[in-house]
Amino acid sequence: MTAEIISIGDELLIGQVINTNASWIAGELNKAGILVSQVTAIGDNSDDIQRVLKDACLRNNIVLLTGGLGPTKDDTTKSVLAEYFNSGMIFHEPTFQHIRQLFKSRNYEVTPVNRQQAEIPEKCTPLPNENGTAPGMWFEENGKVIISMPGVPFEMQPMLLNQVIPKLQKNFELPFIYHKTIMTQGLGESKLAERIQKIEDNLPKHIKLAYLPQPGIVRLRLSANGKNKTALEDEINFYCRKLLADIPELIFGYDDILLEAVVGNLLTERKENLSTAESCTGGYLAHLITSIPGSSNYYFGSVISYSNEVKIGELNVSSADLEKYGAVSQQVVEQMAKGAREKFKTNYSLATSGVAGPDGGTKEKPVGTIWIALASEKGVQSKLLHMGEHRGRNIRRTALEALNMLRLEISEHKKTC
Amino acid sequence: MTAEIISIGDELLIGQVINTNASWIAGELNKAGILVSQVTAIGDNSDDIQRVLKDACLRNNIVLLTGGLGPTKDDTTKSVLAEYFNSGMIFHEPTFQHIRQLFKSRNYEVTPVNRQQAEIPEKCTPLPNENGTAPGMWFEENGKVIISMPGVPFEMQPMLLNQVIPKLQKNFELPFIYHKTIMTQGLGESKLAERIQKIEDNLPKHIKLAYLPQPGIVRLRLSANGKNKTALEDEINFYCRKLLADIPELIFGYDDILLEAVVGNLLTERKENLSTAESCTGGYLAHLITSIPGSSNYYFGSVISYSNEVKIGELNVSSADLEKYGAVSQQVVEQMAKGAREKFKTNYSLATSGVAGPDGGTKEKPVGTIWIALASEKGVQSKLLHMGEHRGRNIRRTALEALNMLRLEISEHKKTC
Repeated sequence: MTAEIISIGDELLIGQVINTNASWIAGELNKAGILVSQVTAIGDNSDDIQRVLKDACLRNNIVLLTGGLGPTKDDTTKSVLAEYFNSGMIFHEPTFQHIRQLFKSRNYEVTPVNRQQAEIPEKCTPLPNENGTAPGMWFEENGKVIISMPGVPFEMQPMLLNQVIPKLQKNFELPFIYHKTIMTQGLGESKLAERIQKIEDNLPKHIKLAYLPQPGIVRLRLSANGKNKTALEDEINFYCRKLLADIPELIFGYDDILLEAVVGNLLTERKENLSTAESCTGGYLAHLITSIPGSSNYYFGSVISYSNEVKIGELNVSSADLEKYGAVSQQVVEQMAKGAREKFKTNYSLATSGVAGPDGGTKEKPVGTIWIALASEKGVQSKLLHMGEHRGRNIRRTALEALNMLRLEISEHKKTC
Repeated sequence: MTAEIISIGDELLIGQVINTNASWIAGELNKAGILVSQVTAIGDNSDDIQRVLKDACLRNNIVLLTGGLGPTKDDTTKSVLAEYFNSGMIFHEPTFQHIRQLFKSRNYEVTPVNRQQAEIPEKCTPLPNENGTAPGMWFEENGKVIISMPGVPFEMQPMLLNQVIPKLQKNFELPFIYHKTIMTQGLGESKLAERIQKIEDNLPKHIKLAYLPQPGIVRLRLSANGKNKTALEDEINFYCRKLLADIPELIFGYDDILLEAVVGNLLTERKENLSTAESCTGGYLAHLITSIPGSSNYYFGSVISYSNEVKIGELNVSSADLEKYGAVSQQVVEQMAKGAREKFKTNYSLATSGVAGPDGGTKEKPVGTIWIALASEKGVQSKLLHMGEHRGRNIRRTALEALNMLRLEISEHKKTC
């Protein structure tokens, strides 16, 4: 059972857009037991789409296309598919109603161009697009399945997860693959590998461990392949518990849960609340926290104190200490955390202050020197971090370190796999 | 003159690694006037490499392969190439000396496996690898060029820039390709297409217009292909000026500049400064602003007022108005902007308040109802937005709308193409 992914769009061939769709789709198909044999990226060119589609159908049971479904003239996928399957076009009323509703809710008027998006090849089953106007299309021919989806990730991803993969599971008998993703924060890939080397060396052959690093987070994925679902789950959970015993402070959750969601859940359970005071993270910590729906129940607010005046005036940081130790210092970050906790009257307050880079470093405090602090009723704790030179990565890693500091303070360390 | 890129590696087909190499190479080839017709990613499988290579050679003058050159057993590119070109292997002494020297400098011992890396097909010209052990390989056959490079970006990139592209420029007479990307904020793809339909319909055949949408931003890319560099640039700039005349308020810059950088540049030029007061964007607006290095020169800070108490206590919002109109209202967002401007003593202050979703909507104020405001010495202006249901997108689009509101206030509208 193999699949080929065809990514369509001129922007993929001039270096303007990186093909993240293909790797995301490949990852999801893999989890469902479908091997990807090839990824092909081509431009918005009818002849190329025809040729690549024909070749892919010869070699695979499943072909997934993304892109080229927009309302503009440069998008040609739909007409190529109609020609390929020798199918006339029909006007699909439910799709048109969906477009109308979507536009109505946004106070837009439906134009003839949008109306055209409701025209689809007669031979396809349309796949409703929750987040956009262009529907996906599902074709079946000679036992093969060809699926066309929009190229916008935000439209394509729920379509693949909620419609395409369940339909594929119905159409084909797929092997059973069990994955468990273990989310860690605090160590890079190679340091983490050292910590868990013994467990990794003793894994049975049918269980694989993959390291999936992101800035600030390393996901460990245990995968088992076989026929007995329950036995595989039991085995994976056995090794997951072994990992938890070895690196309890690094594991914050499972299966792609976000650290900001874990912290939010803990605060909700404990009926406690949080505020922040950010210097070097400049709002990113608050953004992570407030990206979780319902965060207004436990998150009260933040002072982003990019200037020293704001640190003094709003967070009650001592101007003498600012002078003596500098803004990037244990003294200042601890006063920021305390100041925010008093101002917002919250149980906890997190603070950050550091040299995010690329400029602003000194010999004593090079770029990547960052302090974080947590104030609670018990007092204030702080931690010095040494990071790299990349501003964006430093900001993200600092925010995650701060969230994990709070998690370690309030979690009961009673996680099970 | 077209090229095909073949990316080799199992990791590309399971979602573990995003194919950034292909888009980077495509960008560099484009700049050199070489069009990329296709990118194909396959696993470390000899049959697939043979098949894809053969097909690519039929359609293109240039074929570039990356990956599969490592010292381990799963890397098969070199033997496939030897077979494909019907070439024996030779031991290449200069490559071996390079490997020895590299290992010596890292205090590693040379193993028989590394020695094998100095064996190359007789018919190739080796391309020295400045940063690694596996040399690149350059083959010529029937007027076509086939190049194999390592998959590690750090090894591949200097090889392409310093060796491959100069050699290609010698081998082929390359056309000139000129791209210009126009950055717009404020309208979705289809609305934008309507606004510029006349210009699009009247573009000459050798100039293409592509829409590259992201949440909150649509990039318009004009591309021209021809022989006269100056004429092409003039033509593209002519159409760019036409677009600027038609949609001046939507265009914030060119060639992938970020809106937050444009605003930062304007504030720096004007020696003015900014603060923010965020409710529904929860720190994301501050994050965008502070993601720009040097933003501390013009950005003083923010109050993230997720709770009403913070709006009243920190931003001086009237509790009577909060009661009467609700937090998501023109009255409150304008008071937030004014309150932040007074607190931080800045020239400008941006404020956001809305229902980001997915919950919290009412009949009068459904999810996606968002107010933004800008306070300046002239007073305060505000705008009501109707967005969708997706929290993350609403947050991003709101922050971009707010930045564009400030840009329109302070830019001199004297942009040229």
